[in-house]
Amino acid sequence: MRVCIVGSGAVGSLFAANLATLDDVEVWAFDLSQAHVDAINDRGLRLTGAGEVQARLRATSDPEELPPCDFGIVATKAMHADAAIAATAHAFADGAVASVMNGVGNEETLARHVGRVIRGTTFPAGKLLEPGVVQWDVKGDTTFSPFEPAPASAEQVELLADACTRGGMPTAAVADARPAQWRKVIFNASTNPIGALTGLTHGRVCERPDLRALVTRLVDEGKSVAGAQGITLDADPEQLIDHAAKPEVAYGHKASMLQDVEARRQTEIDFLNGGIARFGRELGVPTPTHDAITALIKGVEASWT
Amino acid sequence: MRVCIVGSGAVGSLFAANLATLDDVEVWAFDLSQAHVDAINDRGLRLTGAGEVQARLRATSDPEELPPCDFGIVATKAMHADAAIAATAHAFADGAVASVMNGVGNEETLARHVGRVIRGTTFPAGKLLEPGVVQWDVKGDTTFSPFEPAPASAEQVELLADACTRGGMPTAAVADARPAQWRKVIFNASTNPIGALTGLTHGRVCERPDLRALVTRLVDEGKSVAGAQGITLDADPEQLIDHAAKPEVAYGHKASMLQDVEARRQTEIDFLNGGIARFGRELGVPTPTHDAITALIKGVEASWT
Repeated sequence: MRVCIVGSGAVGSLFAANLATLDDVEVWAFDLSQAHVDAINDRGLRLTGAGEVQARLRATSDPEELPPCDFGIVATKAMHADAAIAATAHAFADGAVASVMNGVGNEETLARHVGRVIRGTTFPAGKLLEPGVVQWDVKGDTTFSPFEPAPASAEQVELLADACTRGGMPTAAVADARPAQWRKVIFNASTNPIGALTGLTHGRVCERPDLRALVTRLVDEGKSVAGAQGITLDADPEQLIDHAAKPEVAYGHKASMLQDVEARRQTEIDFLNGGIARFGRELGVPTPTHDAITALIKGVEASWT
Repeated sequence: MRVCIVGSGAVGSLFAANLATLDDVEVWAFDLSQAHVDAINDRGLRLTGAGEVQARLRATSDPEELPPCDFGIVATKAMHADAAIAATAHAFADGAVASVMNGVGNEETLARHVGRVIRGTTFPAGKLLEPGVVQWDVKGDTTFSPFEPAPASAEQVELLADACTRGGMPTAAVADARPAQWRKVIFNASTNPIGALTGLTHGRVCERPDLRALVTRLVDEGKSVAGAQGITLDADPEQLIDHAAKPEVAYGHKASMLQDVEARRQTEIDFLNGGIARFGRELGVPTPTHDAITALIKGVEASWT
């Protein structure tokens, strides 16, 4: 089978390198960074940290070079997904495309360009150390299901999940990945922007009762929006938030959105709090706290220009 | 009459210097900055900008030096009022003490230490340029009334207002200064922390519909808390906010709380949004947006340590 990773930053590279260790999978990486593409083609793609992987695969920044693929895995930042899938959709005319992006609403974006979409959510994390080299910070599970409005077949979902699992990225193929996806987006949207607005690590946010109460308001609004879709979360985000606040887990972790704000990079707010609020509006569920947080983060972004 | 300005920073210095131009008023300034005190005693207190004033008065950082005074005007940052009035209360045993501090709840603080309190709110603004020299940025009105739980007499309120007005600080003596005070606190609490959290000037906050909507939510909660006290605002804070956003007024103004955050100085959040929320709790009026904003600003302050 041939798989193209669309957007081979940190998370995309974890999928690309691990899948490329399999003899029966041909991996392509599509990325706009010419330096990263050249490094991968010259020296291969290396992961270091939670796992050590050295993989050979093909990389390109030219969508016309992509051959027809059985599968796509889109791992760009959420706000870049539309342009990335628009440029590469031709390669997936007979294939299926999965999202492993943060937030909600990404499958809807993919379905505007390709016919068979796999809903996905993934917990592993890393960061690009230099072109061709990615630090694997955290191992974790991935969950795939057909995206109902433009579904891949259950067989396709299982084929891709099986390849990921055999390659070293444990992945479950399920009937509905929304419980895992909404658990993750509620976790992220309830904690990430609070760190970004205050400058506090995850643990310090959680130990302040006033901020912890604000986190709970965001969690509760997110649960209401999930519930209005008939989604039963597979775990309570509150427990995950308290677990992550432990010193031995992620007390000192700076949320990725805080890292974005410190580097003055556009954040994924539109797909986290903004995504929850958008689903809320469509469902008639009020999300005043997500609206407020979204406006504040977008104001921070506006202050850079 | 003898008046002591307690806290002779920018606003306190405006009152001190203007009152000291009157032959029938003896002015003392109490301030913890020895450099400012020494400069005032050596060279006098100078205002420049919206008005030019050069005044002679007595200044001290030693509360024991203060003689008995007919009036006090407390102009410290709100969070320093308790310590300042505790140290100086003996000078006002037979006098009345007015607050011209930002926010709400300040008169309650004064009343814990002195028996006759004047509720006050003031709009003039300035900044300390160097010891003994204050830039007078904005002229504006002051409003005084008896603070009912520990009231100064109407005659005392009129005497002090008349002196301020004659000295160059137009001041109205009214039966109830709460409408002006709540108009000001709602304006400040609805705009200041939004600037502080985003880094945007007043005008840029107001031109973003999402942030302007957040400002309106804060205004509406503030109006509800004012209404629950039977206060009819003397003007709509919404109009003041839109007026201030005009290029010729204060479009480019960085809110004082944004200046505090940029300088990593403790803010007055507990007396602005935190003050509105505290009154709301006592009155049974929900203030979820003020609670959230208060928690975020206190989180920002915590991130500095």
